[in-house]
Amino acid sequence: MNIISFPQRSEWKQLLARPVQEMAEIEQKVLPILQKVKLEGDTALKEFALKFDKIEITDFQVSQEEIDAAESQLSDELKEAIQQAYNNIHTFHKAQKQTPEVIETMEGVRCWRKSVGIQKVGFYIPGGTAPLFSTVLMLGIPAQIAECQERILCSPSNHPAIYYAAKLVGITKVFRIGGAQAIAAMAYGTETIPQVYKIFGPGNQYVTAAKQLLSKEGVAIDMPAGPSEVAVMADDSAVPSFVASDLLSQAEHGADSQVLLVSTSKKFVSAVNLAVSGQLNRLPRKDLAAKAIENSKIILLENQQDCVDMLNEYAPEHLILAVENFNEIGEQIINAGSIFLGNYTPESCGDYASGTNHTLPTNGYARAYSGVSVDSFVKKITFQEITKQGILNIGRTVELMAEAESLEAHKRAVTLRMESLLS
Amino acid sequence: MNIISFPQRSEWKQLLARPVQEMAEIEQKVLPILQKVKLEGDTALKEFALKFDKIEITDFQVSQEEIDAAESQLSDELKEAIQQAYNNIHTFHKAQKQTPEVIETMEGVRCWRKSVGIQKVGFYIPGGTAPLFSTVLMLGIPAQIAECQERILCSPSNHPAIYYAAKLVGITKVFRIGGAQAIAAMAYGTETIPQVYKIFGPGNQYVTAAKQLLSKEGVAIDMPAGPSEVAVMADDSAVPSFVASDLLSQAEHGADSQVLLVSTSKKFVSAVNLAVSGQLNRLPRKDLAAKAIENSKIILLENQQDCVDMLNEYAPEHLILAVENFNEIGEQIINAGSIFLGNYTPESCGDYASGTNHTLPTNGYARAYSGVSVDSFVKKITFQEITKQGILNIGRTVELMAEAESLEAHKRAVTLRMESLLS
Repeated sequence: MNIISFPQRSEWKQLLARPVQEMAEIEQKVLPILQKVKLEGDTALKEFALKFDKIEITDFQVSQEEIDAAESQLSDELKEAIQQAYNNIHTFHKAQKQTPEVIETMEGVRCWRKSVGIQKVGFYIPGGTAPLFSTVLMLGIPAQIAECQERILCSPSNHPAIYYAAKLVGITKVFRIGGAQAIAAMAYGTETIPQVYKIFGPGNQYVTAAKQLLSKEGVAIDMPAGPSEVAVMADDSAVPSFVASDLLSQAEHGADSQVLLVSTSKKFVSAVNLAVSGQLNRLPRKDLAAKAIENSKIILLENQQDCVDMLNEYAPEHLILAVENFNEIGEQIINAGSIFLGNYTPESCGDYASGTNHTLPTNGYARAYSGVSVDSFVKKITFQEITKQGILNIGRTVELMAEAESLEAHKRAVTLRMESLLS
Repeated sequence: MNIISFPQRSEWKQLLARPVQEMAEIEQKVLPILQKVKLEGDTALKEFALKFDKIEITDFQVSQEEIDAAESQLSDELKEAIQQAYNNIHTFHKAQKQTPEVIETMEGVRCWRKSVGIQKVGFYIPGGTAPLFSTVLMLGIPAQIAECQERILCSPSNHPAIYYAAKLVGITKVFRIGGAQAIAAMAYGTETIPQVYKIFGPGNQYVTAAKQLLSKEGVAIDMPAGPSEVAVMADDSAVPSFVASDLLSQAEHGADSQVLLVSTSKKFVSAVNLAVSGQLNRLPRKDLAAKAIENSKIILLENQQDCVDMLNEYAPEHLILAVENFNEIGEQIINAGSIFLGNYTPESCGDYASGTNHTLPTNGYARAYSGVSVDSFVKKITFQEITKQGILNIGRTVELMAEAESLEAHKRAVTLRMESLLS
């Protein structure tokens, strides 16, 4: 890995810059796909499946029998593991459910918020080498807790673990379609695919571009996406082989994965560098991981404050604090998606089973965005109820403000009511 | 107003369709403005102020003296009204602040979420005839509660009530710039205007297009915007003059305001129609309001269930339930921004002072989006801490799942730690 020692603050921005994704060209390729699905529905989906995936689809929907059959194709211990992950994720997320608290802001003026599940949501799970059934759990469980009525899943993968997880989280319908066209189908609806109000899930650049473009047309999306990232802050209390394994976990996601280690210990980072080389060769995905490791950085800094400042500037998706005073440092982090404390909290536990969500803001979005949670699956509708006494208490305030904003009809809506009570 | 009696369900979609906003042309005009601000900073802002607003700006920042002086230009009763609104909005929003709750999902596996204020946020308040100081409160108060460190305001208006409200909510800097270029300045930062991570506030189509375009480049925005809307459901227990005043409050916002009344009572809607005509003529903004009223609709339906279904399909920004059983009906609404219950809860109370937020999802976005709240100003960072016993408890689950997803390095990050404890 590339070691950079004690850079000036003025160099940080450049050092921390992520590769810029040129989306314009991809958007130009995706737009006609969206348009065609909008106009031709299922016919377009069949055509794209044949063109891009070389498969002829006769029936988009995965049958209940196929989903039920998945269970028998998985080992008992994997099913138990998935069930354990389900339990932990459910336990953590269910505490996010809020009951309305009524606030009386003035006598006779009562206000509250009620969380209501988004009626129709859609999940996308990509195909490819890694069947991301863990993402089915991470999206499906909070949607289940939020009581979203319709929860559909589109995936070109027919991996039994995906179907098994889909059944566990109560997905209402599963469709065997993929790519930008699957996103378009959920946004617009087709003869077979129901239209949804919010779309979640990872995907390649075409899928990402489709989500971004469609979000301008009314459908909501989970968050803007970019390559996955980990940053680690470590000191001499950390274990080099553990940290190396965490950096490699990130690196194996793909050549564009972002990996960063900051430390004040020269001795430690040398040991990590050695451990990375040692572990890398034993990985099945070593070619991918090696490319990501080549682009990754180890940055040596003078003191912990510099480390904290740099991490807050970088705003990593995942942040591992393998330092002795991890609680103290954790308190100072203001920009990160999810934080892993101490030597025995590898990122992979959060990826699968600790209970926190693994759909997190990448690409610096952690400055303004949160990861997926039950909040992502509800709207919070505000309510207010004002009594006769209440309108007499609040009325004059509203009249004066409406008048000062030159909105006379707003004022009269209050005046009329007050007059009716005072006459 | 246009009365439509007992339409078929198949006609609803057409009836409830909002005017489509053609943004492509506006985006083409806005893009070069954004580009120029990005490249030339303050110089571009000065040029645009001269070109679009015909003013020569020498100093972008409004001085503390100017802000302090605003107080003396407002009447005592208006200041008291603003203070009262501040108190109510603060009381309602402060209850939204969450303290972290630690969840132990398995023995030795502790997870929690911590709300952290977005470090830098920017507000835009348009100029024009109505000085929207109420919006300064609606954005500034939750930002204050969320403890966002830097909270800047851009507005072409120098209305003293805006400055007074800005001071109340602790805006850190106020800048006298407007239009799409102000949004660009906050997104990119210039020599004078600090870069922010999230931009809030209303504006014309250029401002809206700028926000939408810049949100693709990394800055977050409050929500997609469209013309303001009210829907009213009323029965014979409602007061026609009250309902008429509510419809007109919405109509006076502009010719593109969306106004909808649904009812099962023919007698009632005739009375409202009459009252609207009577009240309209006495409004100073009657020309604007008359245009909106012309495009607005009264829909007569067979029964309350039809009303509820239609309202949920429409997903109004504001919904007034002027029906006898408003609590029961309120429970059945799943798509709305803010709901006003009963005869003495006009929308204008929520616009100014009841305590709820008035920045709400328009254009059907209430199906998937919530209005602004303290949530809009924080990120919820997840934390996890796993003990040695914890990794032994959860480790096997993670190993199995990582292996099934073909992510070997993820598995090894756990295996290494478990082996170190078991050897």
